[in-house]
Amino acid sequence: MANSAKEAEQALTEQVVASFAQTPDARLRTLMQGLVRHLHAFVREAEPTEAEWMAAIRFLTATGQKCDDLVRQEFILLSDTLGVSMLVDAINHRLATGATDTTVFGPFYIEGMPERGYGENMAFTPGTPALVQGRVLDTEGCPIPNAVLDVWQTADNGMYSGQDTAQPHGNLRGRYRTDAEGRYAITTIVPVSYPIPTDGPVGRMLAATGRHPWRPAHLHFMITAPQHRTLVTHLFDERDPYLASDAVFGVKPALMVAYRERAAGDEPARRFGFDGAYREARYDFVLDRG
Amino acid sequence: MANSAKEAEQALTEQVVASFAQTPDARLRTLMQGLVRHLHAFVREAEPTEAEWMAAIRFLTATGQKCDDLVRQEFILLSDTLGVSMLVDAINHRLATGATDTTVFGPFYIEGMPERGYGENMAFTPGTPALVQGRVLDTEGCPIPNAVLDVWQTADNGMYSGQDTAQPHGNLRGRYRTDAEGRYAITTIVPVSYPIPTDGPVGRMLAATGRHPWRPAHLHFMITAPQHRTLVTHLFDERDPYLASDAVFGVKPALMVAYRERAAGDEPARRFGFDGAYREARYDFVLDRG
Repeated sequence: MANSAKEAEQALTEQVVASFAQTPDARLRTLMQGLVRHLHAFVREAEPTEAEWMAAIRFLTATGQKCDDLVRQEFILLSDTLGVSMLVDAINHRLATGATDTTVFGPFYIEGMPERGYGENMAFTPGTPALVQGRVLDTEGCPIPNAVLDVWQTADNGMYSGQDTAQPHGNLRGRYRTDAEGRYAITTIVPVSYPIPTDGPVGRMLAATGRHPWRPAHLHFMITAPQHRTLVTHLFDERDPYLASDAVFGVKPALMVAYRERAAGDEPARRFGFDGAYREARYDFVLDRG
Repeated sequence: MANSAKEAEQALTEQVVASFAQTPDARLRTLMQGLVRHLHAFVREAEPTEAEWMAAIRFLTATGQKCDDLVRQEFILLSDTLGVSMLVDAINHRLATGATDTTVFGPFYIEGMPERGYGENMAFTPGTPALVQGRVLDTEGCPIPNAVLDVWQTADNGMYSGQDTAQPHGNLRGRYRTDAEGRYAITTIVPVSYPIPTDGPVGRMLAATGRHPWRPAHLHFMITAPQHRTLVTHLFDERDPYLASDAVFGVKPALMVAYRERAAGDEPARRFGFDGAYREARYDFVLDRG
C-alpha cells in the first residue's frame, strides 16, 4: 500500500473527528470522537471488503429488528455475548471495599413483582425444592435490616415468567426483605442452566463462531437499602458445567454457592414447609455505602 | 482506580477474545477478535455509565427498526455519517494507477433502469437543463467503447425516484453506453444539494452534535466495461456550498465538474434538443484494468 493511501485514510478519520467538534454537550462530543477513532482503527486493521461491510450492516439491521417492546432485546444479547455488558459493569463498580461483586442485570427483570414474606415460596412450577438464605451486611459487617431483595430466576424449562407466557404471573420472582438481624430466606427451586435465545442474529453469530449459548444456573438479585449502593448480582451453582464458558461472561469466583442436600423433616423443613428432602444454599451479601 | 481492577478488565477482554478461538472460518475469527479488542478499547477509554450504555443500545435498536425493505437503510446512513463507508471505500480502492477516484455507493441505487440512447434525456421533472458528456478511457488513455454508465441523481426536490414515489418511474435514472470512440452524453438537469433523511436516529445524532445533514449536489455513476474494474463514483458541482462539509464525507477534489452556461440554439443544443439556454459539464472517466 502506498503511503499516500494510508495518509488519505488517516486524514479521513481526522475529518470525521473534526465534524463533531461543535457538539454542544462536551460528554457527547468526547463519546462520538472516541467512537469514530476506535471504529476507524478497527476498520483500518480489519480491512473489510465491501461485501463484508454490507454483511455487518445487514447483521446490525436484523439485530435491531429482532427486538420487541416486551422481553426480547437482541442488542443487549449482542452486548452481553461480546462481553461489553460485563465490561461496563466492571467499569462502574471498581471500588474495592469488600462489597459483593456485581454482574450483569440481563434483559429479564420485571418491576413490581409480589412482596413475599420471610422464607415464602416463589416457585409455582416443578423443580428441586431449595431454601436460599443468609444475611445482608454493610462493609463493616453490620447487618442491614429491611433491605429489599428483588429475586428472579428461570423455571426448569430454562425460561423466565414473562418470557414464557405459560408460567403463572410472578412465578420464580419476588421481593423479599431482611429482618431486624439482616437475615433473608427464600423458598424456591434449584436454578438450571439455560441457553440464551438462539433464534436471532446473536444465535447465528454464536453458531458461526463455534460458541455455545448456555448460561450456568443462577439466581438473580437486585438488593436495595437506604444509604447503600444498589447491588445487582447473581448467585451461581458451584457445580454447573458452564461456569467456565458462560455465554455472557458473567461468572465471578466470589458468587458461587453450593446447594447442599438436606433431609426431610429437619427444623428448617418444618419451619418453611418442605414436604421431603430439599437443598439449601447460604450466602451473605455485602452492600457498599451509597 | 486500583491496578487489580484494570487487570480484571483486561482479563475480561482476553476471555472474550479467547471465546472466539474455535471459530471454524479463519477470516470470521480474525474479524470477531479484532472487533472485541477495539470495542473493548473504546469502552475502557470512554468509561460509559450504565445509563449511557443503555442509551447506546436504544440508539442501535431504533436504527435497525427504522430500516425498511425498500429504500430506507438507516445503518448505511449511520455508516456514511460516521465516515466508515468512505473508509471502507478507500481501503478497497487503494491502487494508485491513474484511475478515477471512487466514492460511496449510497442507498438509492436501483437495478434494471431503462437503457437510454446517446444523449437521451432522463429528466422528467423540472430543473435547469444540462448536458453531461465526456469519455470513458483506460489507464493508458485509450477509449473504451460500449462501456455502460448507470447514472442516478435526485430531482429538484432533493429526492430520488423510488424514494419519492410521486416521481415517474425511472426519473433521473438511466443506463447509457459509450460509442465507438468511448464517448457518452446524458441530457438531464443540474443536480441540487439535498439533506439525507433526518426523521430517524441518524438525524437525531446529527442534530445533537451540531452537524447539518446536507450533501453537495452530485450525479451518481456506476461504470462497467469488460476486462475493467467497475467504477462507483460521483461528479460534484464545483460551486456547491456543502463541498467542505458533506454529511457523508464523500467529496474528493478530482471529482469536480463545472456546469458552464451554453447559449440557446448552438450546435449541441440542436443535436440534443435543448429548447433554450442550458448548462454543460464535461468529464472523462478512467477505468482500471479488472
